[in-house]
Amino acid sequence: MPKGRVEAFSDGVIAIIITIMVLELKVPHGETLDVLRPLWPVFLSYILSFAYIGIYWNNHHHMLHRVKHVTGPVLWANLHLLFWLSLTPFTTGWMGENHFAPTPVAVYGFGLLMNAIAYTILVRTLIRSHGPDSDFAARIGGDIKGYISLAMYILAIGLSFVNAWISLGLFFLVAMIWFIPDRRFER
Amino acid sequence: MPKGRVEAFSDGVIAIIITIMVLELKVPHGETLDVLRPLWPVFLSYILSFAYIGIYWNNHHHMLHRVKHVTGPVLWANLHLLFWLSLTPFTTGWMGENHFAPTPVAVYGFGLLMNAIAYTILVRTLIRSHGPDSDFAARIGGDIKGYISLAMYILAIGLSFVNAWISLGLFFLVAMIWFIPDRRFER
Amino acid sequence: MPKGRVEAFSDGVIAIIITIMVLELKVPHGETLDVLRPLWPVFLSYILSFAYIGIYWNNHHHMLHRVKHVTGPVLWANLHLLFWLSLTPFTTGWMGENHFAPTPVAVYGFGLLMNAIAYTILVRTLIRSHGPDSDFAARIGGDIKGYISLAMYILAIGLSFVNAWISLGLFFLVAMIWFIPDRRFER
Amino acid sequence: MPKGRVEAFSDGVIAIIITIMVLELKVPHGETLDVLRPLWPVFLSYILSFAYIGIYWNNHHHMLHRVKHVTGPVLWANLHLLFWLSLTPFTTGWMGENHFAPTPVAVYGFGLLMNAIAYTILVRTLIRSHGPDSDFAARIGGDIKGYISLAMYILAIGLSFVNAWISLGLFFLVAMIWFIPDRRFER
Repeated sequence: MPKGRVEAFSDGVIAIIITIMVLELKVPHGETLDVLRPLWPVFLSYILSFAYIGIYWNNHHHMLHRVKHVTGPVLWANLHLLFWLSLTPFTTGWMGENHFAPTPVAVYGFGLLMNAIAYTILVRTLIRSHGPDSDFAARIGGDIKGYISLAMYILAIGLSFVNAWISLGLFFLVAMIWFIPDRRFER
Repeated sequence: MPKGRVEAFSDGVIAIIITIMVLELKVPHGETLDVLRPLWPVFLSYILSFAYIGIYWNNHHHMLHRVKHVTGPVLWANLHLLFWLSLTPFTTGWMGENHFAPTPVAVYGFGLLMNAIAYTILVRTLIRSHGPDSDFAARIGGDIKGYISLAMYILAIGLSFVNAWISLGLFFLVAMIWFIPDRRFER
Repeated sequence: MPKGRVEAFSDGVIAIIITIMVLELKVPHGETLDVLRPLWPVFLSYILSFAYIGIYWNNHHHMLHRVKHVTGPVLWANLHLLFWLSLTPFTTGWMGENHFAPTPVAVYGFGLLMNAIAYTILVRTLIRSHGPDSDFAARIGGDIKGYISLAMYILAIGLSFVNAWISLGLFFLVAMIWFIPDRRFER
Repeated sequence: MPKGRVEAFSDGVIAIIITIMVLELKVPHGETLDVLRPLWPVFLSYILSFAYIGIYWNNHHHMLHRVKHVTGPVLWANLHLLFWLSLTPFTTGWMGENHFAPTPVAVYGFGLLMNAIAYTILVRTLIRSHGPDSDFAARIGGDIKGYISLAMYILAIGLSFVNAWISLGLFFLVAMIWFIPDRRFER
């Protein structure tokens, strides 16, 4: 089964997720710069989540470029990833509107963790459908970056109740690690 | 007439439907886990509808992959299906916000029933345009899963006034039946 | 210049327009059928606009299928059409929430008129870019259906202040005329 | 790496941005033309931003048509452009709801400036990936229109505190300069 429509549907859903987050950035009443100032936590959360969703799109793009065919289980693993990604506008809005309070930061981190787990499941499902000796499986290799990310999300969730700013710093750090697209799928 | 744009437009509409449902999951006021707890019926409804729309996309994807050409009536039957699917965010929101009260559950089931009928009409229109002796028609066969689903939706609508949880269980059961993609359109 | 991305962008915008209209169908408070009843004008308006946007997508699809190439002016004429189509959720919402009061019905009709004029401009721009002796120009022919529609929209706008239901009837009548896709672009 | 999915994702995000701006045009209460009159600044802002986003889509379309391949840095430069474009509904809504007060007009101009800078970064990244002697680099040439636009945005931001209508006039003037698509990427 060709992969074109899976790419198109994923592009559509991810494009909508990344764009509707801006609806959380509600137009304030008043015409001075003062009314924009209280929006900074919502705006900072928006930047962070925009970067994360952008990273997922980017790596999804790189990975599917190397995929030969999609099977039923791959379709479901992909839909499962889209489900967790679709909750990002909610966790982003909750964290931003509560000015990075401990629990919303932990829940935001939990969302990132689930995104990462869902992505890992998709990767494993693709490896299974291509076979362990395939070119695709060889490119994935040890996936060290993936395991570091998972560990840092769990650390950030725990630390959010000590100091939520450390957690936020870890979220930005993981984003920076991933900003370099997945070399495994380039030439 | 080639089928590419029909797939692209359907992908677009279905991607938007599946994603705007999350807007019903409104960001709560307050920064503790307590404020998330009342959201569970909305969240559970979201999961159910996300699964259903995902199933429709998946089966639509499998079916159109086997379609040779699209005709005028097929375009309208497809648009008719998209119309009923587009009402899903509304019925999902109403059911979730009323904590699975009998009438909203029955209306949600009615929506699922209309989705299923609209899908059946699309299948029949495609069979007519390909001819009863076509490879496409042969793959459809008896459509037992379709008829079981229709019967279970009707049963669930009726039972919602006895016990809405039985209806909800039936909705999840039908989703599980369909989770295995339509083998008729695979190799 | 190839036409693929113009089709993709138009599909995207039209898919979003047709789907965000459902956001106007706000989830009511209360769990009985009584709370759904006041929604009927919003629902009826939604059906009408869904049909209209669907018709525009359908005819746009048929027409661009026959287009050989797109030029700068065609891109702008297409964007101009998308602009007027994008106002449909607004006029639909205003008409539905005011239960088909004269002025909102007239404004809705004005929106349909502008959609039709913008579509005609796109058709004329495409004819100019293909040349008056092209296969494309020959297929368009006299465009009688287009002129009848324009006349009926103007009639409906005027009659809305006499009886808005006559106008609404005319809107449905025009939709029915167009429901049969544009034969000029089929084989 | 082929450019198809970058075009598809960009089309999706830009299509959503251009369409969700209309949600800021809220359906008014009341059924007379009087209730529409106060909406004119929101409507005028919508027209201006629709034109701007349309221009960006158009030029993006023309430019990527000439691109041979996309690299990692190009993906990020493109995502960076989409980020700034995604803030347009927010600045548009704020300017419209405050009837073109000085600060919102200046912030709107700042948004346009950042869009233009992000577009320039994308152009420079594409030139670097194609090489300074490539056909692509030769087509870009001196980019006089780009520099005039940047200067006029800065001028408009400064003048907004003198007379916001002059700034608005400059925004429309720049839009008109760009309305003619980028000839550099046509035959």
